[in-house]
Formats: sequence, C-alpha cells, structure tokens
Amino acid sequence: MDYESKIRVIEGFPHEGISFKDISPLLADKDAFKAAVSDMAAQVKEWGADVVIGPESRGFVLGAPVALAAGKGFVMARKAGKLPGETIKKSYTLEYGTATIELPKFAIKKGTKVVLVDDLMATGGTLEALVEVCREEGAEVVGVIALIELTDLKGVEKIDAPFRSFIKYPY
Amino acid sequence: MDYESKIRVIEGFPHEGISFKDISPLLADKDAFKAAVSDMAAQVKEWGADVVIGPESRGFVLGAPVALAAGKGFVMARKAGKLPGETIKKSYTLEYGTATIELPKFAIKKGTKVVLVDDLMATGGTLEALVEVCREEGAEVVGVIALIELTDLKGVEKIDAPFRSFIKYPY
Repeated sequence: MDYESKIRVIEGFPHEGISFKDISPLLADKDAFKAAVSDMAAQVKEWGADVVIGPESRGFVLGAPVALAAGKGFVMARKAGKLPGETIKKSYTLEYGTATIELPKFAIKKGTKVVLVDDLMATGGTLEALVEVCREEGAEVVGVIALIELTDLKGVEKIDAPFRSFIKYPY
Repeated sequence: MDYESKIRVIEGFPHEGISFKDISPLLADKDAFKAAVSDMAAQVKEWGADVVIGPESRGFVLGAPVALAAGKGFVMARKAGKLPGETIKKSYTLEYGTATIELPKFAIKKGTKVVLVDDLMATGGTLEALVEVCREEGAEVVGVIALIELTDLKGVEKIDAPFRSFIKYPY
C-alpha cells in the first residue's frame, strides 16, 4: 500500500519558508494508517523492544498504535510539567531558546529496551534528548523510528542509535 | 484483564484539590493497554463509525490505537493554530477563559459517522464542543467514549450523544 501519497505538503505553514508535511490525510485513511503502522511495528519487533516511547503530540498519534500493533507498552514523553509523579527529564536547544522533555521514571529502568517513535525527523533535537535521557537511566535504545525524514536537515547525525524512516523529503 | 488497577491516582496534581488519574502505568503495561484499547474498539465497531476523532494530547494516545484496532481512520482534534490547511473550529468556555478546538475540514463531511475518544470525561467542555462542531458540518456523532469518567462532575450531561466509559471515579 502506497501511503506516501497520503502525506499532504503545505507550503508556508506554520510560517514562511516551511514546507509542512501533514499526516492528517494518512491518519484519516484506514488502509494507509494501518499500512504505515504495520511497517513501523515490524521494525519495532525486529529490534526487540520492551516499550515504545513517543514524544508529545504527534509522536503519540503514531507511537501508541505502533506499540499496540507490535504488542508492546507505550510511554508518553511530554513537555515539562505535564506528567505527575516522579519523572526523568532533559533540556535541549531549539532554534530559539530551549525545551524540556519529561518521562515517567517508573517506565524507563536499567536494561529496558526502548524504541522511540515520532512522525518527523527534522533537526533531531527532541529525539536526541530522548536517547540521552534513556541512556542516563541505564535503558538500551534499540532504535529510533520516524515516519518522515527531512534528509537535508541531517537530524539523523545527532542520533547515536539505529535509525529508520519510511518517507523521505529533502526539507 | 483488570486494567482499572493500572490507573495511578496522584493527589494534588497539577494543583491542590485535584486527584489526578494517571494512565501512564496502563499504557506501559502491554496487556493492560491492549485490553483497554480492545474494549473501546469493540464499542466503536458496535456504533458503526467511519472515523475516530481524538482531542490533543491524551486523546491521541488512546484514540489512534482504538481507531487502528477497530479498522477505522483517525482524525486529530488540535488546539488552535496547529493544523495546516482548511479547518473547522469551535471555541468553548473553561473554568478560567476559553479554548478553541480545531479539526481538518476534509475529514469531517456531511454524513460521516464519527466516534469521539478521550482518556477522561471530566467537565465535558472539549467533548461537547467537538460534538457540536461535527454536527455543524453535517457529520453524525454515533458516540463518545472516555476511558475514565469522573461521575460527580456530570460532564456526561453536556454530551447529546451515546456515551460510554470504562472506569469510574466520583471526582
């Protein structure tokens, strides 16, 4: 099933110069959605993960069904201050300023095999921070998956773990 | 499978007086996650939906896998300004101020049968606004599902559609 054709490219969103890759048409098409999730879940199983981690918010939309399809648990990586209880967190640099990503501490333990799933690999800052915070807890990052990769942005160079994408655009 | 025991109740988060219902332990447990999604997906199929709509962000975590398990497409309902292209939107009142929920216009058409899925039915404002905006487009809201319902808050009284929850707390 060709699900690449279900990505809608919208120029100038959210601001001028950005060529936005919109996954809404893919999600809304039950066959394309299922095919994309199946491809990602097969990679999760091949890597032998215990849990799938997805960063807020579009990482939830793909990470949670990929975890279900692969028969794994799912862990939400959230923006700072949204998770209750004991957390682990990591700050990282954005184009302007910094951001912090946070995870529930109970879910990421020494030896836990994790796969990170997001919709888009752009500059890679969020995924890089997630790889680092998981390693600091002693978890094993067995791989990182992005449905879409913007190859000219070279975000993959920041990811010190096996990486797989399924749809590529230059930027 | 008893997945109710996988909800972690944390008092005083995000602020004093709130008894937070944390779904993180349920999501991280592959068997509990699968069982909860299966129960919700069975209800989606019984209602005969075309698509599942989930509001940002925790509605993504449950709505997307429920759509997958039910063999339906998924539609993201996002906070204002995050969706590209033509959208439909609705503002609604919160305890302090207002919020706006937005959907991709192409996905909600006259006659589309939709089910709304969220993690929590509290005061019901977001789900009420979603029911209304879908109806304004001519879609048929065949049902609303929340994994958890806070019964004392009576949010369900705002929902003019079939409603189902799976785990109940008073508040």
